[in-house]
This record gives sequence, C-alpha cells and structure tokens, in this order.
Amino acid sequence: MPHCVPKGYLLCGVHSRVKPDPRKLDLTLVMSESPATAAGVYTQNRVFAAPVAVCRERTPSEAIRAVVVNSGVANACTGRRGLDDARLMAGMAAAVCGAEPEQALVMSTGVIGEYLPMEKIEQGITAAAVKLGSSPKDLESAARGIMTTDTVPKLAGRTVTVDGAEIQITGFAKGAAMIGPNMATMLSLILTDAALIPETAQTALKSAVDQSFNCISVEGHTSTNDTVLLLANGEAGGQPLSGKGLTVFQAALDEVCQELARAIPADGEGASHLITIDVSGCKTPEDARAIAKTVAGSALVKTAVAGADPNWGRIVSAAGYAGVAFDPDSVELHVNGFRLYHEGAPEPFDEQEVSASIADQRETHIQLGFREGTAAARFWTTDLTAEYVRLNADYHT
Amino acid sequence: MPHCVPKGYLLCGVHSRVKPDPRKLDLTLVMSESPATAAGVYTQNRVFAAPVAVCRERTPSEAIRAVVVNSGVANACTGRRGLDDARLMAGMAAAVCGAEPEQALVMSTGVIGEYLPMEKIEQGITAAAVKLGSSPKDLESAARGIMTTDTVPKLAGRTVTVDGAEIQITGFAKGAAMIGPNMATMLSLILTDAALIPETAQTALKSAVDQSFNCISVEGHTSTNDTVLLLANGEAGGQPLSGKGLTVFQAALDEVCQELARAIPADGEGASHLITIDVSGCKTPEDARAIAKTVAGSALVKTAVAGADPNWGRIVSAAGYAGVAFDPDSVELHVNGFRLYHEGAPEPFDEQEVSASIADQRETHIQLGFREGTAAARFWTTDLTAEYVRLNADYHT
Repeated sequence: MPHCVPKGYLLCGVHSRVKPDPRKLDLTLVMSESPATAAGVYTQNRVFAAPVAVCRERTPSEAIRAVVVNSGVANACTGRRGLDDARLMAGMAAAVCGAEPEQALVMSTGVIGEYLPMEKIEQGITAAAVKLGSSPKDLESAARGIMTTDTVPKLAGRTVTVDGAEIQITGFAKGAAMIGPNMATMLSLILTDAALIPETAQTALKSAVDQSFNCISVEGHTSTNDTVLLLANGEAGGQPLSGKGLTVFQAALDEVCQELARAIPADGEGASHLITIDVSGCKTPEDARAIAKTVAGSALVKTAVAGADPNWGRIVSAAGYAGVAFDPDSVELHVNGFRLYHEGAPEPFDEQEVSASIADQRETHIQLGFREGTAAARFWTTDLTAEYVRLNADYHT
Repeated sequence: MPHCVPKGYLLCGVHSRVKPDPRKLDLTLVMSESPATAAGVYTQNRVFAAPVAVCRERTPSEAIRAVVVNSGVANACTGRRGLDDARLMAGMAAAVCGAEPEQALVMSTGVIGEYLPMEKIEQGITAAAVKLGSSPKDLESAARGIMTTDTVPKLAGRTVTVDGAEIQITGFAKGAAMIGPNMATMLSLILTDAALIPETAQTALKSAVDQSFNCISVEGHTSTNDTVLLLANGEAGGQPLSGKGLTVFQAALDEVCQELARAIPADGEGASHLITIDVSGCKTPEDARAIAKTVAGSALVKTAVAGADPNWGRIVSAAGYAGVAFDPDSVELHVNGFRLYHEGAPEPFDEQEVSASIADQRETHIQLGFREGTAAARFWTTDLTAEYVRLNADYHT
C-alpha cells in the first residue's frame, strides 16, 4: 500500500471557488492530530511569495498542527497585504484544527500579482474541515487540491520498518512540464508518522530535495512560490530517529522525493519526451550537477530530442559551456545505450536506428561520461516541442 | 560611406562547393597588403573547434597577412586530423597571399563532427585569390561567404578622424536567431586601417566584445567555434593609437560591434520580436549583466513576448533567480515604456494597450530598474515562437 496515509493525519481537498470551474479542487487542508515536527525547503528566488515568507519564519518547528494550500492565486508580489493574508489563511486553518495560529503552515500556487480572495479561502477552509469529519483520509482529493496546470495528481509513498515499528512516508506534489503561465510553481508536502527532531527533519529533507526536486529542469525558471514541506508527527511510536534507523528513513524519503520530482517533467501536455541525463566521472558532485543541469537546460538539446535527432554535437557542446573544466578528448556519450561520441571524435553509428529509438519511446536516456573523478549526478527534463511553446504563447495573464 | 573597405585590404567570398547549392558562397578570403596587428576573442566552451585552437595560438600578433573562413563544415570535434586541416587551410591562404604559413588566421562554421573537404577548400582558396585580382574590394561577397542559417549578410562600419588621419573600421558577422542546428556559431571579422600595437588591439577588442557579442542571448548555447577577430594594418598612417585617439577609436569599434551583435538576434526566420533588455540601478556591472542575461535567457519571458502577453510576473521572477541580491520592493519594470511593476506590487495598467504595443512592433523594450547602485547593462534576445522550435526540431543532422 504505497499510497496510504501515515498515522495521525487527516487530509482532503475541496473546491473553494477560487478556480472558476466547480469541478476543479483548489484548496487542501492537512491536519495532524498531534503536534508534528516540520521542515521546509524553499525557492531561492529573491522575489518570493508571502506564504514562503510565513513558512520560512515557522520552520523548522516541532509543533505544527495544520497545513493549508490553495491553488489558483499564488499570493506573490502582493506586498504587505499579501503577507497579512497568508498569516490570516494559516490562522484560519489552525483554528478549524483547534490549534494556535502559529501552528499552521501555508502554501499557494497560481497567478502572480493578485490578492487572495479571503472570503472564498475562509469558506474553503471551513468546507474542508467539515469534509475531514466524513472522509478524513482523502489523499487523492488532497493531491488534486494543489494542482494548477498538472494533468494528473502526483503521489508517492514508501513503508519501512525501524526497530519493529512500521513507518509510512507519503507525499504529493504539483508542477507540470508545460512552461507554466506563472504557475510553474513546484509544491510538495511529505507526511510521515516517523519521529524526528526538527534539526534532523530539516537535514533529511534538504538532502532528499537536493537529489530530487533540485534535479529537475523544465524551463529553468525558479518560481516565486516553490516549497517542499515535511511533517513528522511521531505517531508510529518510538524514539526520534537516528543512526541506522535514520539511514533507512532517509533512503525511503529520497525515493519518495525522486518519484514525485520525476513525475513533474513527465507531466506535460506539450512535451513528447521525458529526458534523463546521467553524468558520471566528474571531480566533484557539484561539477556533475553543473554539467547535468546545463545539458538539461539546453534548448538545442531539448529540440533535438523532440525531433528524434541524435545530435551528439549539441549535447557535447552543452557540457562544454557548463563552466566545468574537463578534458574534451575523454568525453563519452551514449544516447539510449548507443555510443555516439568517444575519445574526442564522433563514433560511427546508425543514425536511423538511434533516431528510431528516440522517436519510439516516451523516455530518452542521455549518459555523459568523463574521466576526471568518480562523482555523478542525474537530472530530468522534457523535450521542447512547438506545441509546448504554442500552449504558452497562447496563454494570457 | 559606412561600408567601405579600410585601406590596404583585399577581400571576397566564393563558392567552394562545400555547400551543395552553387548559389551559396561558402569561403571568404581576406588579405592585408602589409602585416597587420591581430587580436581575437574566442568561445569559452571547453569543447572548441580546431580553427579556434589555431587562432588562439597566433593572436595577439603583429604580422597577420591573411584570414580565411569557410562555412558549411565547422571542423569541430575532429581531433588531431581537424587540427592539421585547420593549419593546412591557413597555410593555403597564406601561400596565395605570398605570406608565411603562420601569418594566416582561420575560422570555420557549419556542421560539427565532419572533416573539412580539403580539396574543395584548396580549390576555393585558389578561386578566391584569382577573384581578388579582378574585384579586390568585394565586401558583400566576403560577408556572404561566412553565412550559414543567416538570411542576410551583416555589415557595419564607422569612419573616424584621429590627428587628421581618416580611420576606417568595417566589420562583418554571421549568426542568426534561429536555434542553430549546430550552426549557431557566431563569427565576426573586423578590419581597420588604424595602427595599433597587439596588446592595445587585444584590450580594445575584448572591451568591445564584452558590450556587444557577449550581450546577446539567442538560445544560450555557446558554440564550439565562436570567434571575433580584429585586424589593424596601420595603412591609415600615423603612430599606433593611444590616449585620446584610442578613445575615439574604441567608441567607434564599440559601435561597430554593437551594430553587428544586434543584427544576430534580429535575423531570425522563426522569431517575431527582437527584445532589448535594459537593467539599471545595480551595485556592479556584473550584477546588471547577470540579471539582464537571466531575463534574456528565460523561455517564459520569451514566449510571453511571442504571445504579446505583458506578463510582468515572469520578468520580475526571472530577475529574482539571477543570483543577485536586491530588494524586491525596489524593483521597477517598464515594457515598451509602460510601467507594469513598482514598489513590490503590480501597477494598474491597460493590458490591451500594452499587449497591442508588443504585438504591433518588431522590437520589445524591457527596462528593469533597481535601487542598489548605478551600474547598468543591456542585452538583446529574441522571442520564442512555436515556428522557431519547429524549424529546429524538423532539422536533422
């Protein structure tokens, strides 16, 4: 049961009328029956939204009881009033959960530069609280309540056993491959019934995010609202995790985050390929990440994949401008298992065959090997299609 | 006469049969009657082409007599043999100009990973030498001989007077806004009859390039072959420039480089807008450049302009992830003269009016003001249209 709700959490999503379409959910409420440890990782954008400011102040924490998320309006670039609204929204969620105002966290996603319609938000929170009474474990509606341009809800879960206790980690996320019309925000909430002290939770989340959500590149645009939260309420029992138990937990958390992260570029109306970029043989992990990120961000590489063009020159030269020193003659490139470049010169290959392997599969695998060291990194991105651009250029604020 | 040839140079372009279409010129030969000072600025890509390696070895110089450029094959990723070919090609150009092999420079642009067809190159150089006898000042054919995906030749020139002597600076360039199918290379050759010592030429060229060719962003992909060369043969007479004369020369050289650089994003089959990004009020020029470059590289900003969408949120948040510290509440944004964002909050504006101003004009002007200091930077880029992507995805290596 990968998608079961960890012990001690109630959650659901509702329609609060922020989105015009009544079939679309747009508000998610999560309640922890006992105070939970909470950690957060946030956008590095200098222009960050009001809910990010509020969560930054409140994490790490050991007393979070509620998380509320709305979709449709991002509450970003809204100044003082936006900040007041974010605090008020968190306070409303805390109130329906019987907690103090500061015991709630808040996330928003949607259009930038609009104020939250607070009356609708308040009604939505009330409706969600009522719904928690009848369907307290509605994970799918909770995952749907945070969606914007996503075509599918994104869920992942793992169960691990530590010292005889069964620990559940379940997360959901939003974000889509489409060049997001101000809605490219990535949000994720990970719930676990493990016991963690705040510092451990923060370190574990940061480490997991660095290998997952920070390894996806869709359009390279870091949003004003990007947020990943981890709640750990300890309802599984036992002492706060450390040592071997923590290692087991970390591995499972990493997997949950990677599964959610990968689902983001995989979800794209306009995109036709999910591209995985594996870089190995670098001096440092930072070098490997820099190269993987540069290749993932190259419009030339992404359009080549869209056109099923085994254009090794674009890939090798993208690696070359990542700002990392390497010996050009030691680069080895494979695409879908075919070796295209080796020892500083192109390798003879059957162009039709490689092109067909790209065209015929939804996923494309690019492997770049260097001989500078042993560090590696993996990034995920999508291809760049004309359809993908059309969807964006046609969207108006 | 902005496009006249500086004194002491002979130049022309010919068809050498490297390109299949006999109507397309693909080889340019430039000869200086006397040994010229030469400076070069090259790609920062770790994977650089053979002609770049040869030019790097030979500049700065005070004894260059010939420059040969071919288009169609880039001689990149061609290993040892490519390096030998580049030297041989330069040697052939030197020979027809009556110079020593090391007195020639060489540039290539075109497909990566193919060897130069040396027989065709040799015949082309011979044909160009013959043509120099009958039409020694054929600037337009020289500019055409270096084109790949360009739709128009790119030329710029200035005449200045220093100590009574008339100095001519004339340059040509290639590079187009289309996401180049391995041909996004930017090449430029600038000729002047001014007298310059090699160190001065190198400093002057570097400074001009930093404010021109290094301020354009088409698809962010630094090519394996990017090269800008400056030749100064001193035929205008007088002592090597310094002091006030050098300042006058530098200003004219800056203008020539900016005019050529701007012509690159302006030349795009698939692009519908040339976007100028002005950033001001930064602490340092590096900060201003970083922000201008990030906004110029944002696919979200570029698609918004394609869709005539006055999407200030995309522009402000792109500035936010440039890695530069600034007060988000002090940002001021104008698009085509309309103020859209001010004091950390959106400014009321007539969306239809601003959208029409983008849709109705070929050029879009984005101005981002900060209150951190007095440094400024200007970048040029294009919008990102579906047509633009289609042209690339449909192109096969």
